[in-house]
Amino acid sequence: MIWMLVVMMAMAGINGLQVPANAYSCVNHRCVAEPRGLEVKPGAMGLKLCEMTCSGNLWPLPWNVSLAKTAIAVSIDGIQHDAGFTSSLVHAMQHIFDNTLALKATECVLDAINATTLKINATIASFSEELKLETDESYTLELEDGQVLITAATIYGYRHALTTLTQLIEHDDLTHAMYIITSGIIVDNPFYPHRGVSLDTSRQFYSVASIRRLLDGMGATKLNSFHWHLTDSSSFPIEIKSEPRLTSNGAFSSHKVYTQREIRELVAYGKARGVRIIPELDAPAHAGAGWQWGAKAGLGELGVCFQHNPWPEACVEPPCGQLNPFNDHVYDILDMVYGELDYLFESDVFHMGGDEVHLGCWNMSEAVTKHMTNRTSKAFYNVWGMFQEKARALVRQEKIAIWTSDLTKAPYLNKYFDPNSTIVQMWTLSTSSDAKFYTSQGYSVIASYYDAYYLDCGFGNWILKGSDWCHPYHHWSVLYDLNLLHNVPQKHHKLVLGGEVALWSEEADESSMDVKIWPRAAAAAERWWLNPLKSSWKHAIDRIRIHRDRLVDIGIQADAIQPHWCRLNPGECTLL
Amino acid sequence: MIWMLVVMMAMAGINGLQVPANAYSCVNHRCVAEPRGLEVKPGAMGLKLCEMTCSGNLWPLPWNVSLAKTAIAVSIDGIQHDAGFTSSLVHAMQHIFDNTLALKATECVLDAINATTLKINATIASFSEELKLETDESYTLELEDGQVLITAATIYGYRHALTTLTQLIEHDDLTHAMYIITSGIIVDNPFYPHRGVSLDTSRQFYSVASIRRLLDGMGATKLNSFHWHLTDSSSFPIEIKSEPRLTSNGAFSSHKVYTQREIRELVAYGKARGVRIIPELDAPAHAGAGWQWGAKAGLGELGVCFQHNPWPEACVEPPCGQLNPFNDHVYDILDMVYGELDYLFESDVFHMGGDEVHLGCWNMSEAVTKHMTNRTSKAFYNVWGMFQEKARALVRQEKIAIWTSDLTKAPYLNKYFDPNSTIVQMWTLSTSSDAKFYTSQGYSVIASYYDAYYLDCGFGNWILKGSDWCHPYHHWSVLYDLNLLHNVPQKHHKLVLGGEVALWSEEADESSMDVKIWPRAAAAAERWWLNPLKSSWKHAIDRIRIHRDRLVDIGIQADAIQPHWCRLNPGECTLL
Repeated sequence: MIWMLVVMMAMAGINGLQVPANAYSCVNHRCVAEPRGLEVKPGAMGLKLCEMTCSGNLWPLPWNVSLAKTAIAVSIDGIQHDAGFTSSLVHAMQHIFDNTLALKATECVLDAINATTLKINATIASFSEELKLETDESYTLELEDGQVLITAATIYGYRHALTTLTQLIEHDDLTHAMYIITSGIIVDNPFYPHRGVSLDTSRQFYSVASIRRLLDGMGATKLNSFHWHLTDSSSFPIEIKSEPRLTSNGAFSSHKVYTQREIRELVAYGKARGVRIIPELDAPAHAGAGWQWGAKAGLGELGVCFQHNPWPEACVEPPCGQLNPFNDHVYDILDMVYGELDYLFESDVFHMGGDEVHLGCWNMSEAVTKHMTNRTSKAFYNVWGMFQEKARALVRQEKIAIWTSDLTKAPYLNKYFDPNSTIVQMWTLSTSSDAKFYTSQGYSVIASYYDAYYLDCGFGNWILKGSDWCHPYHHWSVLYDLNLLHNVPQKHHKLVLGGEVALWSEEADESSMDVKIWPRAAAAAERWWLNPLKSSWKHAIDRIRIHRDRLVDIGIQADAIQPHWCRLNPGECTLL
Repeated sequence: MIWMLVVMMAMAGINGLQVPANAYSCVNHRCVAEPRGLEVKPGAMGLKLCEMTCSGNLWPLPWNVSLAKTAIAVSIDGIQHDAGFTSSLVHAMQHIFDNTLALKATECVLDAINATTLKINATIASFSEELKLETDESYTLELEDGQVLITAATIYGYRHALTTLTQLIEHDDLTHAMYIITSGIIVDNPFYPHRGVSLDTSRQFYSVASIRRLLDGMGATKLNSFHWHLTDSSSFPIEIKSEPRLTSNGAFSSHKVYTQREIRELVAYGKARGVRIIPELDAPAHAGAGWQWGAKAGLGELGVCFQHNPWPEACVEPPCGQLNPFNDHVYDILDMVYGELDYLFESDVFHMGGDEVHLGCWNMSEAVTKHMTNRTSKAFYNVWGMFQEKARALVRQEKIAIWTSDLTKAPYLNKYFDPNSTIVQMWTLSTSSDAKFYTSQGYSVIASYYDAYYLDCGFGNWILKGSDWCHPYHHWSVLYDLNLLHNVPQKHHKLVLGGEVALWSEEADESSMDVKIWPRAAAAAERWWLNPLKSSWKHAIDRIRIHRDRLVDIGIQADAIQPHWCRLNPGECTLL
């Protein structure tokens, strides 16, 4: 009886072209396509239902999964959420869940006669909306006959549970109904507390809509930290109310500015997706546009060597520009900007940048050198260190992050940065011993190794013909397989906070961001969530291919990693 | 008086954030940004107006350009077209022109008081709608005080003239009006008759909307040949009315089929953009999905070794699949398919594929070997040659194209392919002497050298970890600098028909097609249009950056090639 219905449904799905739906059987934990025809073999399923019940479709893979290999029909009309509490943030999380399921059901959905309505009850220990490095993201998800129970320490763990649940409810192409895993339990908790994506909105302006799309993808992938490289020497695209000259002189145009209202909205948008936003105001280098007006306004030179030509004399790429560490007005302005960014982002960590100071820039600037008695490299490094200390004192947050640089090496590291409150973001080689070094000095670290995590590499040099400095393109498997602890002693593991992929914008903007970020950020996400030691990309490829398509389904233009045929024929595109 | 207006306009453009519009002066053929401020220097212009009148913004650069360095205000309301003729195709070309200008004027446009209405008169020698390799694409474009005269041999030359004209009318950010180059003349004609893009819609399905977007970009860039790699072993996504089992067995799903109505519409859509569509049905290799049902239907095996596992025994990548050259039903079906494709595409050239036959596949297939007395490589090559000859006889077109393969080498080349009616598409190395070889044998050639024109290279291996076979990514400068005639004797130059970039879909689909195709296809387009011998990518970078943004403006997600700051500061990001 049920299979007659299946056959009728399969035929109903045929258009004039007579292309029957693909039917699958589960054989040894693998979905095997049935020969195509109008008659559907009893027990056969559509692809998504088969993946969910047979081979597994979760991404990132939870810590402890025990699920039935069967599914039952479920109605997604009128989903009942009871979290024991409501707030606009919790409601937003539930709304995203409902929407994600609705997107899965855009094709014809026939509620099976016996479909139960989805009910999701939750027990949440704390309803605090604070989202920080220490936030407990753990959750337990229990399924039983279409009834769901979530247990979580915080609303952010609850949100993760909802995200996992969206992957356990799928549309079946044969019966045109929605199914949920019959029963089971998932106990889950991320391996690293910091799982991030960094975006450079100075070299190119990214619309608010495109940043929202990034946050959508991060939420769907349980990435929890959006590191926003707000400014650089190219442009200063944020509205600063206490010093509007930064924006009026620094934005590319009046259309390319993030207003404070938009920033506040993005912060809220991120929280609803479990993502905290960490602002970076890079200094004293990588600062140019926005700081040009000081002399004209009687404040002296705030920035030096902006747009210096020939640029190789004063920076690593055009346009040059560094702050003047001897102008007190610089610190007055930083004080105001830091204050506004603290208010806007409510972030527990503030990223001070601090990379790639070019000594040649300061050395050619009389506004700088007139304050110096000698011009040795050491003297300049100490001027840089003085800048970091003075600026650090203005930061509201207890914790700062900085990029690795000459100043994070001995003897300057310990002199200018407090290990208890400084996170070092390493953009060196993954084969370096930097993680070992910094953690041995007591610093916590975030890994952004350029040979794995820089997503803009491999597209050629943008000034000269030839390769870019960080080529080649890093394949998702490279990100997946990178174990951040490989050379860190056990006693310092806790200081490795996690990783961050980065999209720098010399050769990327809103048009290419989705393709360049996804699904590679998702590959890193599973590594950071689970740190699987016994499996590699080979064991993940079937699931990441599913997750990639899932991202496309929610409107993200993730890149393709294999022909579509490979998803339709799991295991057939491998050479294991 | 006029400058007071400019100042007022500049101020009117300021929002609450007070970001004044960027103003430029033309200094030695270069647009130099003025210090930002509320007062605009007399003579200063917005960026686009400056680029158009000062440094040049045309892409691809016409053959002979003589333009005034000034522009006058023009009204783009009620543009008057008079081509001496109307037809739905000519009207569509005019409509695209009007729309392109309307997109340029999406921001506030104030018609200057003295703006003249744009009038475009044309003298067109032939109104034939036929678009083929020999179509005359030349045109002359004359401008005088907002009046335009186009002279062209065909409507396709007329269309090119309109495309050039869209680049000579720009919005000025300071006065918020539209401007047209005051006067001048352009005499233009492409260097090569074949300037193409190839897309693989078998390994991934691309929506009709995405193919329309590709044709939009091609039209805007004067690329004239869309080579549609319709089928491969992965899927058979086209509706074939005389043999629907090809589609019902070969399409990924009922949603992933190009109906004949859609194909006809795309052919018309292409013509309105000056693009002919050349269909390819790859055979006898790269054919699998769609051909599986022969034995069951009593026709014997139409295809062999489809989905063979382990695949390296029978093909270069999964899924394997080749046609059975000894089954007469194969030729009956090809006859019907070729007939329908001829009707649908009205193409002067038919692409027969013909690459990468795997002898191991036929050698392991009893349906093939039972007809062979010996199984030497030579014997298999002659079977392949027999297939090509028999299939060739069924092709309606006078000219065929084939990919280079073992069969396009001696002694088979001359035996199986007629030089007068065969175009060899070379997908070998650009450093090879293949162009010299084939043209010396009397064949005409199209260059698709994989080390420059394969746009899917550089994204890593999709089966094993590591590099893809055709890495690295080919930077736009590589495509721009490749002179196809570098080793071809003068007397054979005419046999080099042009080039084609190709997007294969192992690691690309609708999500990434724009980013991977553009602006690199545009770089190739100028090479093929002009074949500039005295200039290189260095001299083109300022203009291609403009053209890349132009593509984005018409809805194409072209990749970024430099920070936005570089466009705002022409010449500042170079190391010449």
